[in-house]
Amino acid sequence: MGEFELIRRFFASAACAAGGEGIALGIGDDCALLQLPAGEQLAISTDTLVAGVHFPDDADPFLLGQRALAVSASDLAAMGAKPIAFTLALTLPDARADWLEGFARGLCAMASDCGIGLVGGDTTRGPLSLTLTVFGRVPAGQALTRAGARPGDLLCVGGSLGDGGGALPLVLGERQERGPEVDYLLQRYWAPQPQLALGQALRGRATAALDISDGLLADCGHIAAASGVALLVETTKLPLSSALESLFSREFALNCALSGGDDYRLAFTLPASELAAIRADWPEVAVIGRVAAGQGVHLLDDAGAILQPPALGYQHFGSQGD
Amino acid sequence: MGEFELIRRFFASAACAAGGEGIALGIGDDCALLQLPAGEQLAISTDTLVAGVHFPDDADPFLLGQRALAVSASDLAAMGAKPIAFTLALTLPDARADWLEGFARGLCAMASDCGIGLVGGDTTRGPLSLTLTVFGRVPAGQALTRAGARPGDLLCVGGSLGDGGGALPLVLGERQERGPEVDYLLQRYWAPQPQLALGQALRGRATAALDISDGLLADCGHIAAASGVALLVETTKLPLSSALESLFSREFALNCALSGGDDYRLAFTLPASELAAIRADWPEVAVIGRVAAGQGVHLLDDAGAILQPPALGYQHFGSQGD
Repeated sequence: MGEFELIRRFFASAACAAGGEGIALGIGDDCALLQLPAGEQLAISTDTLVAGVHFPDDADPFLLGQRALAVSASDLAAMGAKPIAFTLALTLPDARADWLEGFARGLCAMASDCGIGLVGGDTTRGPLSLTLTVFGRVPAGQALTRAGARPGDLLCVGGSLGDGGGALPLVLGERQERGPEVDYLLQRYWAPQPQLALGQALRGRATAALDISDGLLADCGHIAAASGVALLVETTKLPLSSALESLFSREFALNCALSGGDDYRLAFTLPASELAAIRADWPEVAVIGRVAAGQGVHLLDDAGAILQPPALGYQHFGSQGD
Repeated sequence: MGEFELIRRFFASAACAAGGEGIALGIGDDCALLQLPAGEQLAISTDTLVAGVHFPDDADPFLLGQRALAVSASDLAAMGAKPIAFTLALTLPDARADWLEGFARGLCAMASDCGIGLVGGDTTRGPLSLTLTVFGRVPAGQALTRAGARPGDLLCVGGSLGDGGGALPLVLGERQERGPEVDYLLQRYWAPQPQLALGQALRGRATAALDISDGLLADCGHIAAASGVALLVETTKLPLSSALESLFSREFALNCALSGGDDYRLAFTLPASELAAIRADWPEVAVIGRVAAGQGVHLLDDAGAILQPPALGYQHFGSQGD
């Protein structure tokens, strides 16, 4: 038995293989089998993370495992889907037991948090990269897409923005301080919590939704384009964590909130009549603007005037990413 | 818009995005959505191909696209599943238009052959590799697993064996001749035909099945282990293509048939009473042995005596693969 066959067995016996409801056959055959309740649809998303592009080559394997699954599960949250299962395609330069042990622990910790089970995958030798494919279920016709925003809807986000971008200088070691604010931002980067319960609660209420991975402005641009509307963002209403505000200048913090990636908060459009019900359970939901007729994403100043938009680009870790 | 965003649009508009029955939402949102008929299960398989490990770095992109999807769809055939959709995670060192155009053409040609639609994925910059995840549907409880073989069943394969292994010296350029036999083997390597219709016909008939990717002996070992039985293989009954026999010595050809990888024929166990019905539609199905009480895979000589088994190892392209 080769070392990579051993890895497969290792993952097959890991706790996260226990899995969620709906797994009819897990790891070990040519395919896994899922079975959905009648009237439900399966939501599917695939993400690849490449060493040196999406995370540092020497990233802690526990944190990497945790983060990789969180990032993927966040796409299920964005559709209002309930997690069922995931597959892992892991490409590794070598099979180091300590690395694998840490990675599997991080992966399984997040799997347990999300109620999602590992049902299969592939392990190959090569430059370090991970492709995760996640599966969730959602009642037919109730998935949250990007396409339903209507003029008059509120534009909301599921919590503080900019923490992912603010964490980057710390992740990259460009800033070295310590303290609870640093710990908070690093935790937000390495263990973002997919807003799964919020996403499910938004079914039948939100008119459009996605998760913020590429930065608020860029991602709101996807809603605007898919829905054929304009999104107006009030910069004074962007929720910033006290950690982000205390560690950085207001200008940098706002820039992170608008254009930093890796926040994994939900952004969604909501008829005003639905707001009270959502905020009763999620008081951290913030109204940051509104939907209007037109196209594109526009920033408003304190007086409600439209500002010239900044560049919408974003950067993942590293300079060559995409 | 970055070059990789352009690639995403390119694939989204490619013909293979048209898709198969059961796709409720395709490329372009946080998740794709599939909807199965009541009483059906979803079969899922993930495979990664890494340049320099699973295929030569300079592989023709058309052939690579064709082969990558065929290899993955073969896992659906092995479960008796009908293809619906697939995702593609493509990691590329750069976004060369000619390479992408060829790759997409090959991928979409095979997608059309298999009746499977591209529903999503991810495109990232990094060392060339592909991860495909394929989805198929199968009536609940009727999927072909590796676990049901019973003593007395026949051991069958869906066609000639060893072509994949025989093609390797040609793929690697170690042999340079030309001619119809060479063309045949190269075609078998670069465009293996997943035995989808055969797999679906075996539902309710075969007691165990898989597709031969790692070599007959290694893969039969999986059936033997999962079913708790012994498999007896009669070497004189192994079906060899005339191309393989004409280009190589009988010893090399037999070794390819037993231990060469990349054949993507189905191997399955079948009650003798089912054979006639299957061979009526698939005359190329060959009986190569039988299931017995015991464990492991054993070779029989002409007189039915058990031979000492050869090493069960196999090699993909390249020496560092797994």
